[in-house]
Amino acid sequence: MTGRMDIVLVGAGNLATNLGYALKSAGHRILQVYSRTEESASTLAGLLQCGYTTVPEAVVPEADMYVFSVKDSVLKPLADKLREGREEALFVHTAGSMDMDVLDGGRRGVLYPMQTFSKSRLVDFRHIPCFVEAAEAADLAILKDLAGSVSDSVHELSSEDRKYLHLAAVFCCNFANHCCAIGAEILERHGIPFEVMRLLIKETADKLGSLSPREAQTGPAVRYDVNVISRQRELLADIPEFQKVYDMMSEGIHKMSEERNTK
Amino acid sequence: MTGRMDIVLVGAGNLATNLGYALKSAGHRILQVYSRTEESASTLAGLLQCGYTTVPEAVVPEADMYVFSVKDSVLKPLADKLREGREEALFVHTAGSMDMDVLDGGRRGVLYPMQTFSKSRLVDFRHIPCFVEAAEAADLAILKDLAGSVSDSVHELSSEDRKYLHLAAVFCCNFANHCCAIGAEILERHGIPFEVMRLLIKETADKLGSLSPREAQTGPAVRYDVNVISRQRELLADIPEFQKVYDMMSEGIHKMSEERNTK
Repeated sequence: MTGRMDIVLVGAGNLATNLGYALKSAGHRILQVYSRTEESASTLAGLLQCGYTTVPEAVVPEADMYVFSVKDSVLKPLADKLREGREEALFVHTAGSMDMDVLDGGRRGVLYPMQTFSKSRLVDFRHIPCFVEAAEAADLAILKDLAGSVSDSVHELSSEDRKYLHLAAVFCCNFANHCCAIGAEILERHGIPFEVMRLLIKETADKLGSLSPREAQTGPAVRYDVNVISRQRELLADIPEFQKVYDMMSEGIHKMSEERNTK
Repeated sequence: MTGRMDIVLVGAGNLATNLGYALKSAGHRILQVYSRTEESASTLAGLLQCGYTTVPEAVVPEADMYVFSVKDSVLKPLADKLREGREEALFVHTAGSMDMDVLDGGRRGVLYPMQTFSKSRLVDFRHIPCFVEAAEAADLAILKDLAGSVSDSVHELSSEDRKYLHLAAVFCCNFANHCCAIGAEILERHGIPFEVMRLLIKETADKLGSLSPREAQTGPAVRYDVNVISRQRELLADIPEFQKVYDMMSEGIHKMSEERNTK
């Protein structure tokens, strides 16, 4: 166990909830939760058994570290507002896509835990890859210690590379999930329960534990089975936005497969 | 254990390999493997310890059942050719997207195991949902027995509904995997190993074991964080086809989330 930190969580969303719970479980002291909305602030404060506020001016000034997990668009103005009177504290954000230097004006760093978080599902932090960065070497050491207290997978990564990592994560997680959401809607329209799809989804992910996504690809598009492809796209004639996704993904799969075969 | 069937496998691809192995393991007799190419025919025949041929005329005539797992475009002509002299046998195909009646001219049915198969990865068939259909009630009973001998999840489904099920599977599996392939390529271009993504992919799938994909969705698009979205799409300026996917998926996620919120 590393040195215990006194922490204020700024933000009370999915990520803050999971990270806050992991930090508290690792022995750190959560002094306070700040959130714009009373409901989310009080819910997370209840889980972490600490105080909360919805007023930036009422955020306590004595924490070692302020961990910002807020919508990217409000991160900078909120951090700038809180910096006054907290010049000695370490400001940390958890956003994959934001540059560390949006926290300029003092000690600053990033702790980006790459996972898809939901409040309703507290995940085991131990294996979550955490990517850290800090402006000063001493703060980097502190953040590595802090990340190491909740995860066994801590990596140093620059703001520039983290942007691409986060972008890749959006494809691998959010966009993959959206494909499943479209599949679920097609099933729903035909009265087939989504449950039958769960094993296929699990195996699709499990394959990527040992194969690359290119190697793992199957289905009509990679076989370039134009009969199936043209019939399947016709099934979507009444849902043009799904048909567009169908066309684009099928073309992309075919193209990638051709590149692989000619490599 | 159901009655033992004497089976010829027509096709020796990913699905035939996994299904053939499961059928043999369940005690059925694989008489022969037919494939257009010597290499795949002999490989699967070796795994199943049976004979093989690459010549339709040399397919043995005495099987109870001919199981076709071939590219959809060759299914009908090949089945028509083999039907002569095998009028009493049950012809079965395994394709999600093909109507049962492409096997007209005699006893016919479908056994569609919904999974993503790779030759290099023999999967446990026991939990794979298998969807069966037959023209005659007696053949449906045979196919239910056969499917039940390899899987605990056997469902009756019409050709029409199966088309939509297969379409949904293409979204949930092939297209989701393609999103991961794009993510992997972005990482590769920036020297970040794909391994760091594996836990996120696993959790994305695991969440769908208990949540619907709409409920499980996270990320900039569902938050409609236009700052992140516009910066992320700019990162793809040099890969226009990925940028098109980014735009389409982000719009789709946002639209679905709006629908959900107004329901």
